[in-house]
Amino acid sequence: MRWARCERDGNVFFGIVSGDEVQEVAGTPFAAHRVTGKRYPLSSVKLLVPVVPPTFYAAGLNYVEHIKAQAASQGQQPKIPQKPDIGYRAVNALTAHEEPVIIPRDAGQRVQYEAELVVVIGKKAKHLSEADALSCVFGYTIGNDVSERDWQAVDRTLWRAKNTDTWKPMGPWIETEVRLESLRTIVRVNGKTTLEFPTNHMLFSIPQYISAMTRYVTLYPGDVIWMGTEGASPNLKAGDVCEIEIVGIGTLRNAFVAES
Amino acid sequence: MRWARCERDGNVFFGIVSGDEVQEVAGTPFAAHRVTGKRYPLSSVKLLVPVVPPTFYAAGLNYVEHIKAQAASQGQQPKIPQKPDIGYRAVNALTAHEEPVIIPRDAGQRVQYEAELVVVIGKKAKHLSEADALSCVFGYTIGNDVSERDWQAVDRTLWRAKNTDTWKPMGPWIETEVRLESLRTIVRVNGKTTLEFPTNHMLFSIPQYISAMTRYVTLYPGDVIWMGTEGASPNLKAGDVCEIEIVGIGTLRNAFVAES
Repeated sequence: MRWARCERDGNVFFGIVSGDEVQEVAGTPFAAHRVTGKRYPLSSVKLLVPVVPPTFYAAGLNYVEHIKAQAASQGQQPKIPQKPDIGYRAVNALTAHEEPVIIPRDAGQRVQYEAELVVVIGKKAKHLSEADALSCVFGYTIGNDVSERDWQAVDRTLWRAKNTDTWKPMGPWIETEVRLESLRTIVRVNGKTTLEFPTNHMLFSIPQYISAMTRYVTLYPGDVIWMGTEGASPNLKAGDVCEIEIVGIGTLRNAFVAES
Repeated sequence: MRWARCERDGNVFFGIVSGDEVQEVAGTPFAAHRVTGKRYPLSSVKLLVPVVPPTFYAAGLNYVEHIKAQAASQGQQPKIPQKPDIGYRAVNALTAHEEPVIIPRDAGQRVQYEAELVVVIGKKAKHLSEADALSCVFGYTIGNDVSERDWQAVDRTLWRAKNTDTWKPMGPWIETEVRLESLRTIVRVNGKTTLEFPTNHMLFSIPQYISAMTRYVTLYPGDVIWMGTEGASPNLKAGDVCEIEIVGIGTLRNAFVAES
């Protein structure tokens, strides 16, 4: 099932997407809800960020080739993480499918995509074993962890390198029926494929992350965990359009524009 | 004016605290609201975390003696930040005044307090100059950035070292009338003063942080910025009670207990 957060005539609602249509739902997918019976053409609604998370988690380094590529680009030896230490991103930076990613005037040349599978939590969870970890997952969406590599290299934290306004596109919707092992991530810039990888071939799996995290932290409905990216990215510039497809989930598309 | 978030007979509401009394308010301090006329003894309400932030910012290293003490305890040379790079904490870890801080069974000995002034944002803000920066501030509260130094030293991120459940006490209320230069922070463990410092003697000031941040990120009503701590902390153990007073704001008190 595909859950979208939609806006139509100024109303914001969750909807279930089937083909070219969306059915309006009263309530949220994380609590009691009912299908209202109202149906709209998908093209007539604006898709919003599918959930605004209470806490916005991100694995960061979680695919081996990406870790090697990043280290090489900074002239360093790769440090492969030895355990699943989670990181964070910020809600201010979230933006929806088809919304522009705005590049500040003083950003450097190395503005890059990171194509990520996003886990959406559906149930409050603490102390989950790896075997039970996926029981708290509601579904999956797609994230673009847009990054500026000069700021990433010189700043003490990842704040503007990763969390500049509009730099966290997420969407287009949440898919609840996913076979993790069969997912493939494909990135296209201006229609040309620049990266393709098996989505689930992570250094630490989703169950490993969730089990480690919930030893210390409670996960809440709507929390998201961005699972990291593979490979490298070309430098993106104003006018570029970046599409991240995860086959079986959907396609997240955003144009990059210069700050006016 | 002192704004608290309160619970009484299962109802959650904002209230204005005057002496030993709280006046119930309909709405939130960040939007249209009205005083309802209902008054309760302050002792009859439970004080909640005064705001649940959309984004939870933290300066981290922002007082010189703390930076030196931390570096020394890790056997390193102090690195004094050269610019105000903001960091993040996580909403799962927030807990209220008088709620217990729970120490997991496998935590090391070096569980420590960090006594912090917390800025509460009242208005959406972008591109503020230092001169205008405080115009977006609604008021101030107190935070205890509880930290486990072994995890902080070995983990790739600050996740469990800083964001374990209950490790971010915040409260007791938001004070809107504050003279930053006259604030003093006093920490007491089991009634004995262990730290005292002039709260506003930061490496980078609140206006410097807000101006730098809003060049790239939009601040939203309810966002909080924890401004860092001075000095060092003794190791805290189950049974200890930690009080952080910022004279002119209030006192945040939490007992430390062992995970059951």
